[in-house]
Amino acid sequence: GFAKIDHHRSLRLGLPEVIYAAGKTPAQVAGIFERMAAAGGDVLATRASAEAFAAVHEVEPRATYHETARVIGMRQQPHVAGVGPIAVVCAGTSDLPVAEEAAVVAEYLGLEVHRVVDVGVAGLHRILSQREVLATARAVIVCAGMEGALPSVVGGLVAAPVIAVPTSVGYGASFGGVAALLGMLNSCSPNVTVVNIDNGFGAAYVAAMIVRSGDRKS
Amino acid sequence: GFAKIDHHRSLRLGLPEVIYAAGKTPAQVAGIFERMAAAGGDVLATRASAEAFAAVHEVEPRATYHETARVIGMRQQPHVAGVGPIAVVCAGTSDLPVAEEAAVVAEYLGLEVHRVVDVGVAGLHRILSQREVLATARAVIVCAGMEGALPSVVGGLVAAPVIAVPTSVGYGASFGGVAALLGMLNSCSPNVTVVNIDNGFGAAYVAAMIVRSGDRKS
Amino acid sequence: GFAKIDHHRSLRLGLPEVIYAAGKTPAQVAGIFERMAAAGGDVLATRASAEAFAAVHEVEPRATYHETARVIGMRQQPHVAGVGPIAVVCAGTSDLPVAEEAAVVAEYLGLEVHRVVDVGVAGLHRILSQREVLATARAVIVCAGMEGALPSVVGGLVAAPVIAVPTSVGYGASFGGVAALLGMLNSCSPNVTVVNIDNGFGAAYVAAMIVRSGDRKS
Amino acid sequence: GFAKIDHHRSLRLGLPEVIYAAGKTPAQVAGIFERMAAAGGDVLATRASAEAFAAVHEVEPRATYHETARVIGMRQQPHVAGVGPIAVVCAGTSDLPVAEEAAVVAEYLGLEVHRVVDVGVAGLHRILSQREVLATARAVIVCAGMEGALPSVVGGLVAAPVIAVPTSVGYGASFGGVAALLGMLNSCSPNVTVVNIDNGFGAAYVAAMIVRSGDRKS
Amino acid sequence: GFAKIDHHRSLRLGLPEVIYAAGKTPAQVAGIFERMAAAGGDVLATRASAEAFAAVHEVEPRATYHETARVIGMRQQPHVAGVGPIAVVCAGTSDLPVAEEAAVVAEYLGLEVHRVVDVGVAGLHRILSQREVLATARAVIVCAGMEGALPSVVGGLVAAPVIAVPTSVGYGASFGGVAALLGMLNSCSPNVTVVNIDNGFGAAYVAAMIVRSGDRKS
Amino acid sequence: GFAKIDHHRSLRLGLPEVIYAAGKTPAQVAGIFERMAAAGGDVLATRASAEAFAAVHEVEPRATYHETARVIGMRQQPHVAGVGPIAVVCAGTSDLPVAEEAAVVAEYLGLEVHRVVDVGVAGLHRILSQREVLATARAVIVCAGMEGALPSVVGGLVAAPVIAVPTSVGYGASFGGVAALLGMLNSCSPNVTVVNIDNGFGAAYVAAMIVRSGDRKS
Amino acid sequence: GFAKIDHHRSLRLGLPEVIYAAGKTPAQVAGIFERMAAAGGDVLATRASAEAFAAVHEVEPRATYHETARVIGMRQQPHVAGVGPIAVVCAGTSDLPVAEEAAVVAEYLGLEVHRVVDVGVAGLHRILSQREVLATARAVIVCAGMEGALPSVVGGLVAAPVIAVPTSVGYGASFGGVAALLGMLNSCSPNVTVVNIDNGFGAAYVAAMIVRSGDRKS
Amino acid sequence: GFAKIDHHRSLRLGLPEVIYAAGKTPAQVAGIFERMAAAGGDVLATRASAEAFAAVHEVEPRATYHETARVIGMRQQPHVAGVGPIAVVCAGTSDLPVAEEAAVVAEYLGLEVHRVVDVGVAGLHRILSQREVLATARAVIVCAGMEGALPSVVGGLVAAPVIAVPTSVGYGASFGGVAALLGMLNSCSPNVTVVNIDNGFGAAYVAAMIVRSGDRKS
Ligand SMILES: Nc1ncnc2c1ncn2[C@@H]1O[C@H](COP(=O)(O)O)[C@@H](O)[C@H]1O
Ligand SMILES: Nc1ncnc2c1ncn2[C@@H]1O[C@H](COP(=O)(O)O)[C@@H](O)[C@H]1O
Ligand SMILES: Nc1ncnc2c1ncn2[C@@H]1O[C@H](COP(=O)(O)O)[C@@H](O)[C@H]1O
Ligand SMILES: Nc1ncnc2c1ncn2[C@@H]1O[C@H](COP(=O)(O)O)[C@@H](O)[C@H]1O
Ligand SMILES: [Mg+2]
Ligand SMILES: [Mg+2]
Ligand SMILES: [Mg+2]
Ligand SMILES: [Mg+2]
Ligand SMILES: [Mg+2]
Ligand SMILES: [Mg+2]
Ligand SMILES: [Mg+2]
Ligand SMILES: [Mg+2]
Repeated sequence: GFAKIDHHRSLRLGLPEVIYAAGKTPAQVAGIFERMAAAGGDVLATRASAEAFAAVHEVEPRATYHETARVIGMRQQPHVAGVGPIAVVCAGTSDLPVAEEAAVVAEYLGLEVHRVVDVGVAGLHRILSQREVLATARAVIVCAGMEGALPSVVGGLVAAPVIAVPTSVGYGASFGGVAALLGMLNSCSPNVTVVNIDNGFGAAYVAAMIVRSGDRKS
Repeated sequence: GFAKIDHHRSLRLGLPEVIYAAGKTPAQVAGIFERMAAAGGDVLATRASAEAFAAVHEVEPRATYHETARVIGMRQQPHVAGVGPIAVVCAGTSDLPVAEEAAVVAEYLGLEVHRVVDVGVAGLHRILSQREVLATARAVIVCAGMEGALPSVVGGLVAAPVIAVPTSVGYGASFGGVAALLGMLNSCSPNVTVVNIDNGFGAAYVAAMIVRSGDRKS
Repeated sequence: GFAKIDHHRSLRLGLPEVIYAAGKTPAQVAGIFERMAAAGGDVLATRASAEAFAAVHEVEPRATYHETARVIGMRQQPHVAGVGPIAVVCAGTSDLPVAEEAAVVAEYLGLEVHRVVDVGVAGLHRILSQREVLATARAVIVCAGMEGALPSVVGGLVAAPVIAVPTSVGYGASFGGVAALLGMLNSCSPNVTVVNIDNGFGAAYVAAMIVRSGDRKS
Repeated sequence: GFAKIDHHRSLRLGLPEVIYAAGKTPAQVAGIFERMAAAGGDVLATRASAEAFAAVHEVEPRATYHETARVIGMRQQPHVAGVGPIAVVCAGTSDLPVAEEAAVVAEYLGLEVHRVVDVGVAGLHRILSQREVLATARAVIVCAGMEGALPSVVGGLVAAPVIAVPTSVGYGASFGGVAALLGMLNSCSPNVTVVNIDNGFGAAYVAAMIVRSGDRKS
Repeated sequence: GFAKIDHHRSLRLGLPEVIYAAGKTPAQVAGIFERMAAAGGDVLATRASAEAFAAVHEVEPRATYHETARVIGMRQQPHVAGVGPIAVVCAGTSDLPVAEEAAVVAEYLGLEVHRVVDVGVAGLHRILSQREVLATARAVIVCAGMEGALPSVVGGLVAAPVIAVPTSVGYGASFGGVAALLGMLNSCSPNVTVVNIDNGFGAAYVAAMIVRSGDRKS
Repeated sequence: GFAKIDHHRSLRLGLPEVIYAAGKTPAQVAGIFERMAAAGGDVLATRASAEAFAAVHEVEPRATYHETARVIGMRQQPHVAGVGPIAVVCAGTSDLPVAEEAAVVAEYLGLEVHRVVDVGVAGLHRILSQREVLATARAVIVCAGMEGALPSVVGGLVAAPVIAVPTSVGYGASFGGVAALLGMLNSCSPNVTVVNIDNGFGAAYVAAMIVRSGDRKS
Repeated sequence: GFAKIDHHRSLRLGLPEVIYAAGKTPAQVAGIFERMAAAGGDVLATRASAEAFAAVHEVEPRATYHETARVIGMRQQPHVAGVGPIAVVCAGTSDLPVAEEAAVVAEYLGLEVHRVVDVGVAGLHRILSQREVLATARAVIVCAGMEGALPSVVGGLVAAPVIAVPTSVGYGASFGGVAALLGMLNSCSPNVTVVNIDNGFGAAYVAAMIVRSGDRKS
Repeated sequence: GFAKIDHHRSLRLGLPEVIYAAGKTPAQVAGIFERMAAAGGDVLATRASAEAFAAVHEVEPRATYHETARVIGMRQQPHVAGVGPIAVVCAGTSDLPVAEEAAVVAEYLGLEVHRVVDVGVAGLHRILSQREVLATARAVIVCAGMEGALPSVVGGLVAAPVIAVPTSVGYGASFGGVAALLGMLNSCSPNVTVVNIDNGFGAAYVAAMIVRSGDRKS
């Protein structure tokens, strides 16, 4: 076999391993998906093309394709409602695929998600009008490419951890997400941490960890 | 006055604002420290030189200097024991100042901190022998300059959020922390997020946020 | 002589040439200053050390030293009050030297300057409380190192050109002002332009040009 | 809806918001265009493909496509002639798309525009022969990819603000516009400011701001 | 002729020269292959497309195509079994093409190769379970894109030279292999050296050199 | 204690761990040195200042200081002559400290070392005249800052592994060793591998590994 | 017209201006070509596609297409044989297009050109066997992507100016020619200068200048 | 001995080798200087500190120190007047050390040198007023840090090769000479080549080569 599935992880972390479909053939994705489904847990694949979904659907008709998010998912475990909630904030229309990857993955990981879209810092009234929904979130994911400052602004509005996701959206001196990444690393709101450019999946995973870390305690 | 103190933040976030002493004169640091102390809360200054502490000590004899961490602190609020705990992991001796900044700030923010030092990935038995203390942590901070992979390894051992702090320790192609930063952003453990190079303060702040986010819930 | 003074510029642009003192010996600065003073106009030197000022003061006792701004100035021309006004906005205490370079040069170039200091985006109430003074400005200069987003936020609040000055303040992934520079170049407020890192002088010059371009018209 | 239109901006800034069509589907562009048109103001979309225009034309037959500039525009407001004027200077044939984006947007924003094309610094007589038209401009936009020095040269010839637009034209060590960008940021003419690589739109917007800032005064 | 074949190299180094097929037409590859085959030694071409193989196969029906590795090979010399052995370690499924280039080339260079696949550092049990096979290797090649730390971990487990091959697999801040490259150059295991990004061929060649250097001695 | 000594390594690898003295106080270096000496093996410290040596000498009078190499060493184990040999090649006078670090460490690790100095590629007769000594080496270390091509040239002359060490010597576009590093990674001699900039220690360690890997076999 | 032809240049420099066809439509290239041909001099276009040539051929049937070099040329002026000569040296097969651009342009500029191909530094006998032809050259152009050291080696063999052309050939850490560029800028042969990556045209132009500068004198 | 003197070079190239004093101790510089002087030719050392000169002067009282240029020279060979001439052009006062290095070295290499100083592109009249002296030069060296475009402008004014020397003068986004270097590599005047940042010596050497290449012919 070309992949060793890490069933340990699920035991260790309480969250399923997730297939990274980029750079795998549809057949490879379908094969791993099928084996993981057979183990009885929820199954997820990110960065999945329509072709990959077609191959998965062949072997697992219960699988669903989230097109904007490029995520294939299948739930086999019972689901507790209202865990969290978290918020996923998105600066512009073009950041939507990354934000949706974060939101869809978070939902599969069991979280309730509030989406807040198109709230750039150049028009502050947009984000200020969302203060209430932000205030309820136990973690906030902020996805932005040309608005590297949005996580700082959001970070100043909430008393929760903010996970910043730079996106590769933009042109010229945005350098495929590097400008946003640097802006976020230099955030002057101290509750901001950063994940890799376009890594909506990782942001969702960390948000789930944060929520579970809290729940574990009580 | 040359600085506007953000008392709002403390109300909003439940955590004190912290003075960033780098690039301020000892007199400026002492001035801000004194005004913030007068407000009755705990006061902290990071990146503080011995000279800055001397000036603060003049006006606030109760202030303490944490030399390795370069932190000046003064507690005025009652302190609840055993909140957390969190772990602060440090790859090598040279990463200690950043790790101590994280640990000392976290303690002032009310957390119980377990320190795990000198555990590089080239000798895995060192980190593996610390699994138990890591397992109890509700958040783990990992500081490393020449061991950009340490957060990934730690991330695979725990079911808690990992906050990676690249340090500027190293030479040659370490590029002042950039190599570690990139390694951490590309971490293959999905529970890892990253803060700025050498930003032990930010890591502590986020850890406190994570713990509080969980406590708030229950 | 080691320098050709460009008297043409003053005729062409209506603004004096300015001595760039960095990398010149005190004697060289004093020599150029004296010759330019002899021409009868206002004289300015930027990036001037205390030593350079001592040498200038020797030959031109009427010269003034603006310490924070590191500017030496001498006014010989009549001065019209209230031209502009412009605003100079400064994110943090450590950005003050650059902001003061901008403000002091702008004043020598004949502008009325409103200073707005310590208004980071992580505490929006600070900048929002300054909306009125910003609204009167015919150009706004924004200096920031760790707050690359501040010009975007300011740009969304005013109907005037915003000149963003990245400063080399910060650490780690701020890369000596590069993070702020990139954030400003990618600003989502379309009224923002950018000058070189730490170039308070250039920002003031452009602001004066903008104001004069408008005045010329009427 | 996938986008929040910022009608505030037009009130605040006196200039319309502009649709950024890159990364939006033709249907999305057309949908936003239609809603903005319904509000009664002038409407503009930049970075628009022929396909996007086809979709817009379907819902708004009065819209015009400026092919070289890749701009879709529709004027609904009365137009005052002769505001400005400004000049748009273009180093080489390959910089034309960016220069045209600047010129067309500026015209929609109400400015009179003089175009000066193909005037590289390696043949100075070309730009020197345009001194008169440059002298009348209240702001000058200079677009150049392989001639990062052109804004400095133009800046030395005029007593107006110069807005430099690096273009991604070039090969090898031009690095997609970075060489031009750096040359412009280091300009030795102090009346030069810079916008993002290929950002003709932003340059036009700033030019309009500069002209209005002046007009407002009188 | 468009290429000078270096028959000296084979004499000097005891290993055949290898055709680098990238950027050569199928006809060029076939032509060089044929001439080298005529010299009687083993022949290899790396970075070879299926089209290049078709052209080679036309002139040399005995040639074999290793698809994942993108290598064309033909053995004409007798082969001694069990030389080495070496191990080729691969972090993830997407690193397989580079690992296979290394493994296949090493086999043609006469080495016995043990493949160890899909052993990322985030699940240490995977690599720890391979300690025995690693312990027998006289050199270990480690290929990884998103796991820049894997060579450090492997380096700590073996008493043999480790040749690290960064791969261009990954996204965002992996920068086409740069993150992995830097992580490997900063390895804290002192038995690690590095070759160019994706250079499986070079790693195999060095491994063969190391084994021969040892054999030569006895 | 501030450091965990890895006695395992010596068992595993058959080579002593080495103290990295940079960023440690003289007292720390002396403390670790003393403890390691007590274990009975050879002890080495690299990047050691004269101050560090003074502190070590206090506690271990048998220790020796190699000034150019900045290495402190103490041999306690019997030494077999003539193992190897290896060659250490040095492009220019300014690369000597790195080359000496490599040579001295290699000698402590038990190897016989031939030094070849000042052999730049711009005067090929220098390196060509050293062919014989190079031909006897079982591994060749090449240290160069402004001669990034030297390892390629040497690689073409020998049938042994070449370990390239870029040095931070040079100015301007040498970027602290980056130019040499890139040249070495792109080497067209396939027997070349690379270690970190200025990492003479690592190169020596790998050379010892290569020689031992061969010896182990027989 | 979209382009101003610089007839001055030919008068000033004694060499024709050359059309840079990249980023121009075939029709634009043909139009400029035709106008320049009408002026009676030799005409050249570089970076020309087959489509561009088809369009040129339509209007100027005497034009020739040099396919590997991607150059369109047409000679109308009498040609003096044997001027120079110069040498064009090429490291590998993949560098041929750039080398041919240099050679073909140099021939159109009136020079006699000796081509020396496939002479990498890893097999020194190849370049050493070409010493005689190199010795006759009055300028030497060296094109190399993965052999950034070749100009240094050639520079050490000749008493003439060497013009180094980095090519974008290579992979991984070659970074599209940057590694070669840096190697060439740091050349330790002081007779080496550098032009832009892939700029065969510029190298030829400078070589012609050098030869003419010499001829002018006598 | 720590250095192999390359007497071959002088025979091969007709120009003396030159000592690069940076990174050598005064004693080393004096030692090499003495040995080279004993060979009877002219001797030069660049990047020489006053301390290095003191040591040289001790052993060679005939040696001269050129302070701004940081060059130590001693002429022992007869000198032919009026060879060349060349011009050395300098953008600003701060570029003088590099320009003087070029000019002084060129004079020792036997060239007549015309110095043209303080001629930035923002005031074109300065450089235009020097056209006549530029026109007589057989090669032109242009040194500039903040005026990366100056070589392009000069290149358009002369019919001779232009050697561009970026200097590390500037601040912010000048990046220690990188901005100037890139501007020069992208020069739109095709007679421009580039040497390393601050490499006045190399520029002089190439200029001498160019002049000699021409003289050799006649
Ligand atoms: N070491 C540190 N790194 C980054 N930010 C800090 C640090 N210490 C304090 N801060 C933040 O800096 C801000 C205070 O900056 P200042 O107003 O310049 O003292 C507060 O928002 C703190 O949260
Ligand atoms: N702080 C500054 N930053 C950038 N340019 C400056 C500064 N101060 C003065 N200048 C410009 O520097 C030039 C004078 O340089 P110099 O001839 O070297 O004295 C003039 O063009 C000024 O406009
Ligand atoms: N070519 C452009 N480059 C940068 N920003 C633009 C461009 N065109 C429009 N914009 C801005 O993009 C914003 C609209 O983005 P969106 O909401 O994604 O359509 C507005 O603030 C515009 O001012
Ligand atoms: N995949 C590869 N990466 C780097 N170098 C290679 C590769 N395959 C072959 N080579 C080397 O490329 C050279 C042959 O290049 P060429 O003459 O262009 O075929 C030989 O020196 C080989 O050792
Ligand atoms: Mg929007
Ligand atoms: Mg250690
Ligand atoms: Mg503050
Ligand atoms: Mg042109
Ligand atoms: Mg896996
Ligand atoms: Mg030497
Ligand atoms: Mg070849
Ligand atoms: Mg000047």
